[in-house]
Formats: sequence, C-alpha cells, structure tokens
Amino acid sequence: MKAVIVSIGDEVLNGDVADTNAAWLAERLVELGVEVAYHTCVGDVEEHIEQSLRYAAKRVNLIVASGGLGPTHDDLTRHAVAAVADAPLELHEESLAAIEERFRRLGRPMPTQNRIQAMIPAGAAVLPNTEGTAPGFVVQIGGAHAAFLPGVPREMRAMFDISLAPFVLALPIERRAVRAERLQTFGLPESVVNERLGALMQRGANPLVGLRVSGGVVSVKLLASGQTGEAADHLLASVVGEARRRLGEAVFGSGADTLELAVARLLERHNATLAVAESCTGGLIGHLLTNVAGISRFLLEDLVTYSNAAKSELLGVPPELIAAAGAVSEEVARAMADGVRRRARADLGLSTTGVAGPTGGSEAKPVGLVFIGLATAEGTRVERVQLVGSRELIKDRAAKCALNLLRLHLSKAGDWGR
Amino acid sequence: MKAVIVSIGDEVLNGDVADTNAAWLAERLVELGVEVAYHTCVGDVEEHIEQSLRYAAKRVNLIVASGGLGPTHDDLTRHAVAAVADAPLELHEESLAAIEERFRRLGRPMPTQNRIQAMIPAGAAVLPNTEGTAPGFVVQIGGAHAAFLPGVPREMRAMFDISLAPFVLALPIERRAVRAERLQTFGLPESVVNERLGALMQRGANPLVGLRVSGGVVSVKLLASGQTGEAADHLLASVVGEARRRLGEAVFGSGADTLELAVARLLERHNATLAVAESCTGGLIGHLLTNVAGISRFLLEDLVTYSNAAKSELLGVPPELIAAAGAVSEEVARAMADGVRRRARADLGLSTTGVAGPTGGSEAKPVGLVFIGLATAEGTRVERVQLVGSRELIKDRAAKCALNLLRLHLSKAGDWGR
Repeated sequence: MKAVIVSIGDEVLNGDVADTNAAWLAERLVELGVEVAYHTCVGDVEEHIEQSLRYAAKRVNLIVASGGLGPTHDDLTRHAVAAVADAPLELHEESLAAIEERFRRLGRPMPTQNRIQAMIPAGAAVLPNTEGTAPGFVVQIGGAHAAFLPGVPREMRAMFDISLAPFVLALPIERRAVRAERLQTFGLPESVVNERLGALMQRGANPLVGLRVSGGVVSVKLLASGQTGEAADHLLASVVGEARRRLGEAVFGSGADTLELAVARLLERHNATLAVAESCTGGLIGHLLTNVAGISRFLLEDLVTYSNAAKSELLGVPPELIAAAGAVSEEVARAMADGVRRRARADLGLSTTGVAGPTGGSEAKPVGLVFIGLATAEGTRVERVQLVGSRELIKDRAAKCALNLLRLHLSKAGDWGR
Repeated sequence: MKAVIVSIGDEVLNGDVADTNAAWLAERLVELGVEVAYHTCVGDVEEHIEQSLRYAAKRVNLIVASGGLGPTHDDLTRHAVAAVADAPLELHEESLAAIEERFRRLGRPMPTQNRIQAMIPAGAAVLPNTEGTAPGFVVQIGGAHAAFLPGVPREMRAMFDISLAPFVLALPIERRAVRAERLQTFGLPESVVNERLGALMQRGANPLVGLRVSGGVVSVKLLASGQTGEAADHLLASVVGEARRRLGEAVFGSGADTLELAVARLLERHNATLAVAESCTGGLIGHLLTNVAGISRFLLEDLVTYSNAAKSELLGVPPELIAAAGAVSEEVARAMADGVRRRARADLGLSTTGVAGPTGGSEAKPVGLVFIGLATAEGTRVERVQLVGSRELIKDRAAKCALNLLRLHLSKAGDWGR
C-alpha cells in the first residue's frame, strides 16, 4: 500500500508554520507498514486542493490530508472533496450534535458558521473529533481511500490514533507488520555511533537502523518489518540487543526517554537527594530536571550563582580562590559542588562553571570551556569539557554533560546509597 | 512569479525530521515578492525526483529544491537534474578546489567519494557553499529556473541569502516589492489580539496581517507589498504604528525579540540588578534570562528553592509561615521575593511558587495555580495566575508571566533607578 500526505493551508504554504503534521503522519504511516510515496502542500485555493487530490488518487491507494476543515470562508477542503469525489455535502446530524455539545460544555453559544463543520460528503465515513469541533472523514476518490483530518496537530493526532489507524490496519491490502524502537544515547558523537553500529546501519537492512541527532542526543531508530507481528518483534529484539551492546553506557533510555528522566529514575532507585550549583548553565539543569514530575522528592535546591559574591556567600567558595584560579576553573567547580552538597545536606552535589560566550573568552579560557563538578560521599571529581557553538548551544550541551556525568555515576554505583 | 518548493530525502519523506527547509524557503520567497504555488517532498528515488521536477516546470517559473546533494549513493538529485535538464554532469574545477580546501582546513584528507559533489550539470550557474562541501546550482528546466541547494539547513540558508536571493531579485520578471515586520506580544490571548486588530486583519488586506502563537507569545506578522520598496515601507510603517497603538503594552518587541531580551534591555536601561527565587518554575526563569549574552551584569543570582528547608535557610521565609499558609501561597511568594532581593542586595527580587502538576493539586490550590512576587524598593506585590495544561506548559507560562510582570514594572518605571 502506498500513501500520499497532503497538507492544506496558506499558513503552511507561506512558511508561517513548519509542516509538522506531515512528518508526524509519515512516521505513523511507516510504522503501520504503509509506504509513503510523496508529500505535498497546497494553499487555501479550492482548485489547487482539487488538483492535488486528483493527481494523488491516480498514483496511490491512500491519501491522508490535514487542514482546511475550520468554520471560516478560507477553509475549503470539504468543498474540494465534494467536487472531486462527486459527493455533495450533507448535514451529519450526529456531528452537529457533538459540536453543539462541545460549545455547551465551554458555556458558549455555537456560532452559526460552525454548522458548516458538520457538513460531510455524502457516503463518507465520519471520524469523530475528540479534541475539537471539526470531525474528519474518509471518502473514495477513484481507486484511493482518502482521509481528511483537521489541521490542529492535537486534534489531528488524536483522530489518527483513535480512528484512522484502525481503519488503515483493516484495509484488505497486503501490509507488512512493522515494529519500531528508539534507543537514546548521549556522550558519543554521531560519527562514533555510526561507526560502532557499522553493518547494522546498511541501507535496505531489516531492521532498518537510522540516526537522528537533536540537542546533542543521538537517537538510534530501528524499524523491523515481517510477515507477522511476531516475526517483526523477534527481528527487532535481536538487533536492539546488539545495538545496546555496541553502544554500551552511552544508551540512557529508549522510546521518548530524556536524559533528565534517566537521572530522575536513578535518583529514585538509589533514594538519593541532589543539590545543584549552576553558573554558566544559568538554571537550565534545574529546568530540565524539574520537567520530570515528582522530582521534588530528590532535588532539594539549585543555586544559580551568577555573581562571585553569590558563589562565596551561598556556596562558601573562598573569594581568594576565585581571585586566584578564576570563577571558571577546576578549583571553583569543585568548591561549588562541595559547597552546595554541604549547604543542602544532599547526597550529591552537581556544579557547572564555564564561558557561555559569545564574549568573555580568553586564550587560556576560551568560549565553550566548562568545568563540571560532582560531589559525593566518596569524594569530588571535576570534568573539563570544551564545547563549540552559540551561547544557547553551549548552555544546552554543558547542562546535558552535567546530567550525563551524574547518570554515569549513579548507574555504576550499584547498591550505593541504599 | 510563481515558485514551487521541492524537498528531497527519505528522512523528510518518512517523517524522521520535519520539513523546516520548506517553511524557511517559503517565508523568504514570500518576502522577496514571489508567490509560492505548492510544496512537495519526495524520497531518494531518481525517478520520483525527475517526475516532481517535470511536473513543477510545467506550472511555475521558479523551482527551489533542497536535499540530495551529499557524497553518498543515495544522493541522487544531481543525476535527476542532469536527466531532466538534458545537461550531463561535468567536473567543476573551482568547486573541487573549494571542497579540497575545506578538508585541508579540517586537517583531513578528502574522501574520493566527495569528488561527486563537484559534478555539476553542464551550463549550470554554480552557487558556492560557504558552510559545507556541496555547492548548489541553478539550471533551466523547460521555462523554469530551477535552483538546487543542500539539505543541511545551515548550508541551505546561507546559500539562499548569499547567492539565490540576489539571483531571484535580478530575474527579469515582474515582482512586487515586499516588506515584512513582526510585533511580539505577551499577556493577551490570541482571540483578544485578533479582536483588537479587527479590520486590520481582513483577508486580502495590504499589509496582510496574520497571527502566530508559540509558547504563549502571540506574534503579529505584517506583510506589505507595493510597486516600489518605498511604497511598501510606507504602507507597512503606518499599519505597524496602528497595530502597536491597538495592542498597547502587550507589545514587548519586534522581529525576533524574546521576552527575556526585552527584560534584559530594560534592566540595562535602568541599570538595575535582579535576583530571582524560583520554586515551581524550577530554574526556567534563570535559563531564559541567561540566554541573553551579557546578562551577568544585571542578574546576580537565581535560587531554585525546591525544598521548604531551602526556602527558609536561603530566603529567610519563616517555617511557621510555610506551615500556616502553605508553600504555594501569596504570603510565601512575597517572602521569597523580599528574601532573595535582600540576600543578594539587588534592586529587584522576583519569585514564583505554584503547583506545576500533574499531581499535588487540591481544591483550594489546583494544578496550575501560581503566585508571582516582585519586590522593589517601593514595596512588594504578588500576582496570582491560574494556568491550565501539562507540567511543561505550566512551567513555561509561569516563567513568562513572571518575566512579563517584571517587564511591565520596568517599562512604567520612567527614570526609576537612575
């Protein structure tokens, strides 16, 4: 089965928003065993929508379109579909009742113009909208099944998962079973991950192994396909295991795991408390960790000591040490980690001090130089990293290097802290 | 002049990455006065690339394609172009020298396979790559000018701005002059911004006024077109002025300004120092502010006091007050703002305490309830906000509400602090 993804709307056409719907739909379709032939995006012009649908219906079995189902005059998708599928729009009473009910719950009268959202091409299968007003629908255009979803990502995604995915899986068309997994790694450059995975990454292999890099995190995506779900599962499991072995401790999680979630799980496993002292990362370590619900049981405090006075008064870093070694130094990183651990009476103290740039660097201490301190009951160590890039990139990578240092310590700690 | 945007690559087709190139190119083309007819995305299949180019060349004057110019076997764009434009690939000596020079600077030998990146369709105009190895090029396909750029966003964007934009502007085709401006607002819901702008937002108006909402910030984009640049400038200026009047103090900046940059500018104008005490926002205020280079002159410290002990020991919030009013309360927000201002000897103290969720809420203090404190020499005020959404969304909006409270205070402060 082959599919086309059609995005409809001037805001996407003119680049006011990136087409994240197309990427999301493509990934989901691939995971359902559907081959994506191409994407296209057209504006809110009825003729252009019709043209794109006619062209697609000649080439594929499945069209998945999103956008243009709103209540206003520039939402023309339903009219274009009615013309192309030769199916006049009819009032769908159930959908009208659902839209009215939604407005009732919001305590607002339904504007008359929203009635248009219950107009559905005759003979279409209606897809309920659990997150908003416009229902979606599936019609036949030539030999192709064509599904139309709202453009609002939250509504579109829920409708796809709840209604369209089961519809696609039930189509009487040969599909291979597909299973996907993602391994999340930090600490190895993309090229090294590539090298270590080696032959696993061959083009056309099954499972197909691909890399995605975002925010310093290298994700390994593995996509297995087989005649049956069991066959795909089996194939996937064996290669996931091999990839984990090759990547070793760089793997911090799977699926949608983040570095901060991995750290939070380890803190929980060891029932360990943490205090953080940040300088160049400016609060980002705290921000990342506090994205994890329930972290307040383990994170006691995070002191962003930007001024030297704050470093001394709050963390007990001796002013003479700052004067002698400089605020960006191994010595100060050590004193910060020790100081915040002691002050908060925490099991662990984590610190950062560095030059985030773009100015403030010197030959001895260039922009991107960061010291990370980790204080534990057994002692304190400092790691020196040299990063390159913009201020935001240096902050981001420094915060993640600090979380990773903590993760590696905790994951090697065995029964430590129990 | 009409244009088509073509994205080439399996990673975009299969949704491994969102097509941000298409959005970026579309916005730039619109600003150059070029109408975008549609976008399309195809995978790394030579026949599909050829098909999309032939189809496009019949419909528009300008094709802008990105992707598929790498050195590996699945980079097929140049071969497809050679076939469609009937222009065999030829070695472009200058480009080869540039690629070799790039590797020399990196201290690495050039892999033989990179030589393919210097193979250019005969008769093409070469676009140098200032950021990477693959040059781009422009050829004629039927009646259309077709430009091919690398897929790496940094390389693509630089090549467009440095080489392709001047080329497009020089084409002997009628183009209207276009000028764009963006006003950034915070504090008004999108619907209120819409209402206040009223008739300015009419479909088809010139300037065309549109809204984009991202992270709680409502951006107003104004796009004026005229026979000449001066006419467009004039038209734009008058409506930008009117939009600013209607939106009042909600406007915090223009262009790519952020709320934290607006706050930083105001701190600088007043030469005022700031100390922050965060609870529910967990370091996000500090992270946002420290994204602004040079903020260390004004931001003294940011204490993320997650535990009650930290609130008392570091900020001097009386334990009995926390016990009586609760950590999430107007009283504690006030004491936190006062405490951090006093501790750091800062001009201003800013604080947050709230329930970020998803658990921890109660009937009296539901998830999303946040108190924001602002301590100044004239006294301390606390604002109560009730937010809805996920933990990350509540943290994000609470941090921005805090920055906005500070911004409004500083912008009304006149000569305060001088």
